[in-house]
Amino acid sequence: MHDISEFKFEQIGVINTPFQDHAPYQPVDTEDGEFCLSVFPPFLEGLKELDQFRYIYVLYFAHRITQKPEMMISPPWAKHKKVGLFSSRSPNRPNPIGLSVVSIKKITETRIYTSGLDVFDGTPLLDIKPYIKDLDTKADANYGWVEGEGDMDHLMLHIKGIPHDY
Amino acid sequence: MHDISEFKFEQIGVINTPFQDHAPYQPVDTEDGEFCLSVFPPFLEGLKELDQFRYIYVLYFAHRITQKPEMMISPPWAKHKKVGLFSSRSPNRPNPIGLSVVSIKKITETRIYTSGLDVFDGTPLLDIKPYIKDLDTKADANYGWVEGEGDMDHLMLHIKGIPHDY
Repeated sequence: MHDISEFKFEQIGVINTPFQDHAPYQPVDTEDGEFCLSVFPPFLEGLKELDQFRYIYVLYFAHRITQKPEMMISPPWAKHKKVGLFSSRSPNRPNPIGLSVVSIKKITETRIYTSGLDVFDGTPLLDIKPYIKDLDTKADANYGWVEGEGDMDHLMLHIKGIPHDY
Repeated sequence: MHDISEFKFEQIGVINTPFQDHAPYQPVDTEDGEFCLSVFPPFLEGLKELDQFRYIYVLYFAHRITQKPEMMISPPWAKHKKVGLFSSRSPNRPNPIGLSVVSIKKITETRIYTSGLDVFDGTPLLDIKPYIKDLDTKADANYGWVEGEGDMDHLMLHIKGIPHDY
């Protein structure tokens, strides 16, 4: 067995995105620009057959966080609201492991091109897992406390960080 | 910015399951027995409003792994098949972060009771994130290379670790 207090993150690659100083709160499928995971050589063999999946989970280290996590937070799109950190997708967590579901566009020898990713350019990649239909698609999932916040279509634009005029 | 090489996992709680020496490969919704996440006191405030979500992501440290990860693996239910590690959900990864989607059954002051979890009793809890309908439910997800392996209904029993007679 491993002792958790001794376990350190290992970087398996780097995520490149167009976001240098500002990133959307969540992945945006239709985002313009190039999003790619560059995997380091020792791990490349591990990508075999990944191209057969339509979606993957990308796990990354939210390295731009500098503040200590707070247990109660306000989402940037609902500043009047306070919720528990674990009821939110804030990247500032005790373990700053980010998680995004993205679709695969193309895989080359060392790179995975994906749909829009909500991370800064240069973010350390921690893991890639296949998103598997029956295990991960929950048709009866809900929006939790977000449902009490009003117009869902409008809120989803905020949550996903999609620019809009109203 | 954080230096990834210095970042250590922090345990925010412990996962209790009926599995002492044998665990299913994936979460089983209908599993008998009690599954619960006990969250340590400094993090309890972070659970506020979590009970409004139907599903959550549970991230954990796969602490029972003792071997070095291999980049090519065979799933336990398809021993003839070799796939890349990142095309699989094997817990033995460069960063042994396990990820399961489970439903919330009940939340008490310190505990979250969930549907079946595919982990050993005593597994260190790393993070809890809300599973949010539009962000995480991908209706057009597929089964990747698993689809080439034959009878999907039967294979899903194996993948999920559901006991069956044929």
